[in-house]
Amino acid sequence: MSEKINTVNANGVNLSIPPLKVAIIGGGLVGSLAALNFARNGHNVHLYEYREDIRTSELVQGRSINLALSERGRKALAEVGLEDEVLSTAIPMRGRMLHDVKGQTSVVLYDPCTNQCLYSVGRKHLNEVLLNAGEKFPNIQYHFRHKLKSANLQEGSMRFQCDYEEQQLEEATADLIVGCDGAFSAVRQQMSKTLGFNFSQEYIEHGYLELCIPAKNDEFQMPPNYLHIWPRNEFMMIALPNQDKSFTVTLSMPFKVFEGIRTPKELLEFFHRYYSDAVPLIGEELLIKDFFKSKPQFLLSIKCNPFHFADKAILLGDAAHAMVPYYGQGMNAGMEDCTLFFSILREPHMTIGKALETFTERRVSDAHAICDLAMYNYVEMRDLTKRFSFKCRKMLDTTLFRFFPNYWVPLYNSVSFTSMPYSKCIANRQWQDEILKKIMFIVLSSAVLFIGALYIVH
Amino acid sequence: MSEKINTVNANGVNLSIPPLKVAIIGGGLVGSLAALNFARNGHNVHLYEYREDIRTSELVQGRSINLALSERGRKALAEVGLEDEVLSTAIPMRGRMLHDVKGQTSVVLYDPCTNQCLYSVGRKHLNEVLLNAGEKFPNIQYHFRHKLKSANLQEGSMRFQCDYEEQQLEEATADLIVGCDGAFSAVRQQMSKTLGFNFSQEYIEHGYLELCIPAKNDEFQMPPNYLHIWPRNEFMMIALPNQDKSFTVTLSMPFKVFEGIRTPKELLEFFHRYYSDAVPLIGEELLIKDFFKSKPQFLLSIKCNPFHFADKAILLGDAAHAMVPYYGQGMNAGMEDCTLFFSILREPHMTIGKALETFTERRVSDAHAICDLAMYNYVEMRDLTKRFSFKCRKMLDTTLFRFFPNYWVPLYNSVSFTSMPYSKCIANRQWQDEILKKIMFIVLSSAVLFIGALYIVH
Repeated sequence: MSEKINTVNANGVNLSIPPLKVAIIGGGLVGSLAALNFARNGHNVHLYEYREDIRTSELVQGRSINLALSERGRKALAEVGLEDEVLSTAIPMRGRMLHDVKGQTSVVLYDPCTNQCLYSVGRKHLNEVLLNAGEKFPNIQYHFRHKLKSANLQEGSMRFQCDYEEQQLEEATADLIVGCDGAFSAVRQQMSKTLGFNFSQEYIEHGYLELCIPAKNDEFQMPPNYLHIWPRNEFMMIALPNQDKSFTVTLSMPFKVFEGIRTPKELLEFFHRYYSDAVPLIGEELLIKDFFKSKPQFLLSIKCNPFHFADKAILLGDAAHAMVPYYGQGMNAGMEDCTLFFSILREPHMTIGKALETFTERRVSDAHAICDLAMYNYVEMRDLTKRFSFKCRKMLDTTLFRFFPNYWVPLYNSVSFTSMPYSKCIANRQWQDEILKKIMFIVLSSAVLFIGALYIVH
Repeated sequence: MSEKINTVNANGVNLSIPPLKVAIIGGGLVGSLAALNFARNGHNVHLYEYREDIRTSELVQGRSINLALSERGRKALAEVGLEDEVLSTAIPMRGRMLHDVKGQTSVVLYDPCTNQCLYSVGRKHLNEVLLNAGEKFPNIQYHFRHKLKSANLQEGSMRFQCDYEEQQLEEATADLIVGCDGAFSAVRQQMSKTLGFNFSQEYIEHGYLELCIPAKNDEFQMPPNYLHIWPRNEFMMIALPNQDKSFTVTLSMPFKVFEGIRTPKELLEFFHRYYSDAVPLIGEELLIKDFFKSKPQFLLSIKCNPFHFADKAILLGDAAHAMVPYYGQGMNAGMEDCTLFFSILREPHMTIGKALETFTERRVSDAHAICDLAMYNYVEMRDLTKRFSFKCRKMLDTTLFRFFPNYWVPLYNSVSFTSMPYSKCIANRQWQDEILKKIMFIVLSSAVLFIGALYIVH
């Protein structure tokens, strides 16, 4: 306790770490959140973003990608005092609404016991809230249209391209370089050249394409408080509600299926066959326009270890652990990186080098775990959600959760509605599987014994 | 048959592929072998190597790294007419000679049935043989001291740094770029930026360091016709014979164990404890000198997919699949890449684009399999070889192999002494495991029944 008093002041700023010049590469959700946290800890922050300031760039109505905010993201936002502001414009989603091929729907609530839910938030809006909050700090400086071209992590020197037309280069230095530059991180690229850096990137054979269910008479065309899913084995479609009462629809399927759809006629046939109830909602004309407007996008999973380089650089968010989007945890995990890192930074007698090393130690296995879970959930969402065995397990989990809310938290709930480390969520699920197996064995053997006894008695 | 006559001439050159300008990056074993093959197929080859010509560079006696040449490498050398020349100076190794902590040795032959063996060859010598053979082709040009700095694979353009002091740059173009530039391949680095390129690099926690058992009175100090192994659970040491009657010794152990040995005294204590019989052979003075001369080296495993980029570039050898060195298959697998690729190139009506794509299709799973096997064998060599169960299995395998040489080829033998695809070697082993489990079950139940019967009779 006395240690804490010695090194951390009343505002939670760790006095054992002198103010650093911190360069954050990437001004997306994780980068702008990290900037706020560093600033609150008394450091001098320079945030470099390769795009222009999204707050002044053009908004395409109803097309902004939306995200499912859950517990981990909320907690990280609460820490910088922004949770309420974000939730005030978010749309709660209380469960999955499943659409079958005939257009029949059924609902599976995420948490029938305590009514926790996911929140659909617009990526652009959330980013704007974070950037606006950062602007209030005198020790944060934004540098838009600055693309990192090269860096010497050991020396803390960077070179940015800051005007695309004239290839103008700008140099900068920092005590700490923070890579929040996403799946194709230039900071990680630099780190990957050091010996002992483990890394993997794995593309999946499914691509995705965004469509839109527009508002009709200024109303949602489907119940808004659900994450809508059309599970179809090999492929699937999901839809999340937007503030403007449209839905952003994401169609995921193997690239070879995308390639097989070459004409508007083939597209409509395909949609009428698999997603018949969605056709009138999207509208045939808009469907054709959106589908053929752009190519399906790749999806990939990225793991690496370590997340830091000496006491000079660290990776946060997708730069450290990009995942396929099917657990809705990409943003939440990235924001939780901030929660963890800044809690480590506040530990007594911490140095920046020790903080970076500790972050790697504590975070790698959880980051790998959520990457694996996201891959697993892709299978679950497009396939298992339709299966009888999945529904049975879901019911069993829900029942046990209701009776033992502190002991039996189903996997999805522990991931989405708690801050339990991801690797522990998996371990917890494995423990549950073991218990259920044993119960099944006892029930079955009792039944056999009972029938046997009946047979002998008669 | 008529197809073959139409497109492949009497020398096996595929007439459906016009002569290409081929740039091979890397003049090591795989690069120089690939150059020979391309040249024999009528293409114009430019081989770029970042080091100087090893044939004119200084040789350090007894320190050249040696390699275990086996069936796949031999076959690839035979195809370019160099097998006999290479084998004439190679040293056959008929089995493993195991050294226990007390210095007692025992022998496990690789192939007691048909006497196949591994051949210890010097990397430098083999590379020289290949480069000399290439020099005879008017359509091969060597460019030493050319380091690839950047490449545009799509356009087939490359930029080389060809004088280190003056940073002189040279530009070149090619129809096909062949990356034979090893584990840290610059060509792969370029390829990895394309969407859909799967990649992983995994460092192991063990490093290695090379020592030397010099010749004594111009004689080998240990029996030369074995691969000597000192298995010690967490760490191990191996030694391969050299032409000059020395042995190159490779010490592998966790970095933390290396770090724990800081003084000559600690080193000698460590060696007397674990490798007592090797100390007088190496000599205390040389041991201390070699051990502290350089830092232990990292070992890593690299997998990727695909191995090609459009009809413009391909990766062969370590650039495509670097592995830990514990199956002695790194070079053999790289050379086998050439065997496979050039056999595809000779198929009727082949185009270069189709050949590259086919190579990826046929090679990826086998390359991944041998990377996995190499990792597995690391455990086997330093741990299992000492175990009773390993020796039993080895005996059982040998016995079955002797009686059914066409049906029961043990894993190590199928990898080292056949050209069976690596993934099939693993599948074959799994099939053998299943059979042995069943046999064990039958034997055990028969024994139980027999004892039970005896008990009832008495």
